[in-house]
Amino acid sequence: MKLTIERTALLRSLAHVQSVVERRNTIPILSNVLVEAKGDRLSLTATDMDLAIVEQTAASVVSPGAATVPAHTMYDIVRKLPDGAEVQMELGTDGAQVALKAGRSRFTLATLPKEDFPATAASDLPHRFPLSAVDLRGLIDRTKFAISTEETRYYLNGIYLHAFSAGKQMALRAVATDGHRLARVEMPLPEGAENIPGVIVPRKMVNEIRKLIEEVDGMVEVSLSDSRIRFAFDDIVLTSKLIDGSFPDYQRVIPTGNDKILEVDRRSFRDAVDRVSTISSEKSRAVKLSLRPSVATLSATSAENGTAMEELEVKYDGAPLDIGFNSKYLLDVADQIDGDGLQLVLADSVAPTLVRDLADAMALYVLMPMRV
Amino acid sequence: MKLTIERTALLRSLAHVQSVVERRNTIPILSNVLVEAKGDRLSLTATDMDLAIVEQTAASVVSPGAATVPAHTMYDIVRKLPDGAEVQMELGTDGAQVALKAGRSRFTLATLPKEDFPATAASDLPHRFPLSAVDLRGLIDRTKFAISTEETRYYLNGIYLHAFSAGKQMALRAVATDGHRLARVEMPLPEGAENIPGVIVPRKMVNEIRKLIEEVDGMVEVSLSDSRIRFAFDDIVLTSKLIDGSFPDYQRVIPTGNDKILEVDRRSFRDAVDRVSTISSEKSRAVKLSLRPSVATLSATSAENGTAMEELEVKYDGAPLDIGFNSKYLLDVADQIDGDGLQLVLADSVAPTLVRDLADAMALYVLMPMRV
Repeated sequence: MKLTIERTALLRSLAHVQSVVERRNTIPILSNVLVEAKGDRLSLTATDMDLAIVEQTAASVVSPGAATVPAHTMYDIVRKLPDGAEVQMELGTDGAQVALKAGRSRFTLATLPKEDFPATAASDLPHRFPLSAVDLRGLIDRTKFAISTEETRYYLNGIYLHAFSAGKQMALRAVATDGHRLARVEMPLPEGAENIPGVIVPRKMVNEIRKLIEEVDGMVEVSLSDSRIRFAFDDIVLTSKLIDGSFPDYQRVIPTGNDKILEVDRRSFRDAVDRVSTISSEKSRAVKLSLRPSVATLSATSAENGTAMEELEVKYDGAPLDIGFNSKYLLDVADQIDGDGLQLVLADSVAPTLVRDLADAMALYVLMPMRV
Repeated sequence: MKLTIERTALLRSLAHVQSVVERRNTIPILSNVLVEAKGDRLSLTATDMDLAIVEQTAASVVSPGAATVPAHTMYDIVRKLPDGAEVQMELGTDGAQVALKAGRSRFTLATLPKEDFPATAASDLPHRFPLSAVDLRGLIDRTKFAISTEETRYYLNGIYLHAFSAGKQMALRAVATDGHRLARVEMPLPEGAENIPGVIVPRKMVNEIRKLIEEVDGMVEVSLSDSRIRFAFDDIVLTSKLIDGSFPDYQRVIPTGNDKILEVDRRSFRDAVDRVSTISSEKSRAVKLSLRPSVATLSATSAENGTAMEELEVKYDGAPLDIGFNSKYLLDVADQIDGDGLQLVLADSVAPTLVRDLADAMALYVLMPMRV
C-alpha cells in the first residue's frame, strides 16, 4: 500500500472515524483504524464492535493495499501537520509498520494484522428510506436530552424510532424517556418506512450521527433490520447494533385528560426558572409553580441558601394550582423549543404534565411533577 | 443596609471577588462575601484566610450597613439577571437575611454575622513601589508555567520576587522552578523597591492577580512586608500571605560555561516538537535532539506507538550532540517566547541547558535534560 493524500481531507475523515474509537480498549485492534487504498480512494474504518464507521475520501493511490494503525495517534499526527501539507503513507514490506511522511516529518506507526480487524457485517438491512439531514437533526435534537443514562434500564438508553399510524396519517416517531420526562417527536413517514420495526437506536450512535450531520444539507439514507441501523450520506456509512430490548408503551404515559392550559413566553419562562433554581438545593433542584389567573409564580426554598421568587405574566384561566418540577428538566425542555410560546397542559399537582411548543405541533414533552 | 446598584457593575465586582472563595469550606463564613455600603460605594470582600480581595464600586446607598452572604450563590443570581437590570439589596431588620430584588425577581439570602468575617489585617507593609500592569503581566506570564505543583516542596509553589543587583544595575527579578525547569525574568528595578526582601508569592495569588489585570492598562501599586504582599489598582486591593520558606539559591542552577549555541525559528521548533512528541510515551514524553552542523533532528520512539523524526534547519556549528528533553517542558518554554528566534545554549547531554528568547534579553530559562 502506498498513497498520497491532502492533509485537510485526511484530517476530516480521521476526525470522523477516530471519534468512534474508545480511549481504552481491552481488544488492541479496536484502537486501530483500518486504512484501505484502492482505485482513487482511501477508505477508513473504525469500530467498537457495536458501532462501525466507514468513510471514503479521494487519494492518489500508487499501489493498493490495506493496514491497521492506531487511530488516535494517527489523528494526532495529522492534526499537527501544517495546513496544506501533502501526506504520504506507505506500508513497509514486512507489513509491520506504516510510514507516514509530510514535509520534513517522518513517522512510523506499528500495525496490527488487518485480518484481525472486525469485519463490518454486510448484513441484510431490508428496510430503506430517505431522510433529510435537517429532519434527522430535528428528531434527534428534540429527544436526545431525555435519553436515560441508567445502565440498568438499558432499553431506555436510546431513541425509540418507529412508524406510527393515527388513522390514515402515518408518522415516523422518535421517543426518548428516562422515566422522569419523555420527549416525542414525529414527522410525516418517509416513503419506504411503512413496515419498519420499532427500533431503539443507542445513545452512542445518536451522538455520532448527530455530530456527523451537523453541517450536512442533503439526504441521509436510513437502512435497518430489527437488529441493525445504518445511516449513509456523502462518503460516510455509519452502522450500529440496535438495543435489544422492548421500549415501554410510552403512549400510556402521555396524559390525555389534562384540562388546565398555561401559555408563557418561552424565553422569559426559561430565564425565570434558571434564576429561581439558583436557590434550589443541588440535590432536588426543585422549583414550585403557583398558577393563578394570568400569573405564574416561580419559587424555590433551600435551608442553606435562602429563598427565590419570580412572577411571570402568563395566559392561564384554570383553577389555582401549585406544582413542583425538577428545574433541570424544565430548562432542558424549554431549550428544545424553538418557538416563542411554551404551553403547559396540567391536571393537578401529582399527574404528568404535557409541554408543547406552540410553534411546533410535531413535538410533545411529558414531565413528571415532584413534591415541593 | 439598603442600596441599589446596576447589575453590570455588581456582576463585574462579584466575578472578581467570588473567584477567591473556595468551593468547599470547613469554616462556613469563608463561603460568604462581606458586603458593605457606605457613602456612594459598595465594598465587597472575600477571603480564604491567606488571600483577601476588596473591591469597591459605585452604588446608590439608601442606608449604610454591612452583611455577609453566600458568595457563589449571589454571583450566580446576579449573573442570571437580565442585562441592564437595577439590583436592590436590603438587609432585613432582624439581620438574618438580605433581600435581593431586580425586576420581578425576589431573593432572600441567609446571612452569617459580619463580626465573624475574618478581618483583613491592616498590617504594616513597609515597602511600596509602582509597577505597570504590562510589566506585571510580563513577569508572571514568563515564569508561572514553571511553578512547582508538588505540595511537599511548598517553597517552590510560587514566584520568587526580589531585587537583584549586578554591579550598578538593579533589577526586579521573578523566578520560578519545579526542579526540572527554571524561569527567570527581570526588569529595571522600580523606584521604591530597592530594599524589598525576597518573597515567594503563592500560586493562587499569582493566578488571581493575573486574571484581574488581564485588561488593565495603568499602574499597579505593590506593597509588601516579609510576610505579606498587596497589589492595588483601580478599585481593587488584593492581599496575600507569602510562602514562609526559603527559595533555593537558583543562581547555582543556571549554567555559565555552556558553549554550544543553537538558534532556531521558535514557531518551527515548537511545531516540530509537538508533532514528534505525539509518539513519545505518555509517561516520559521524551524527545531527542540530535545536533549536527546546521541541522537538528528531533526524534521520539515508543514501544507501543512507533517512531517519529523531523529535521529542522538551524544555526549550529558546535560539536555533534545528542540530548533528550521532556517535550512538555520544551513546548512550555517555546510558548513563553514572543520573538521569532529561540536559542539553546548547551554543554553536553546531561548538563542543564539554557534557553533564551533572542528578542528578549530579560528572560532566561533553564531545562534539565533527560536520558533518551
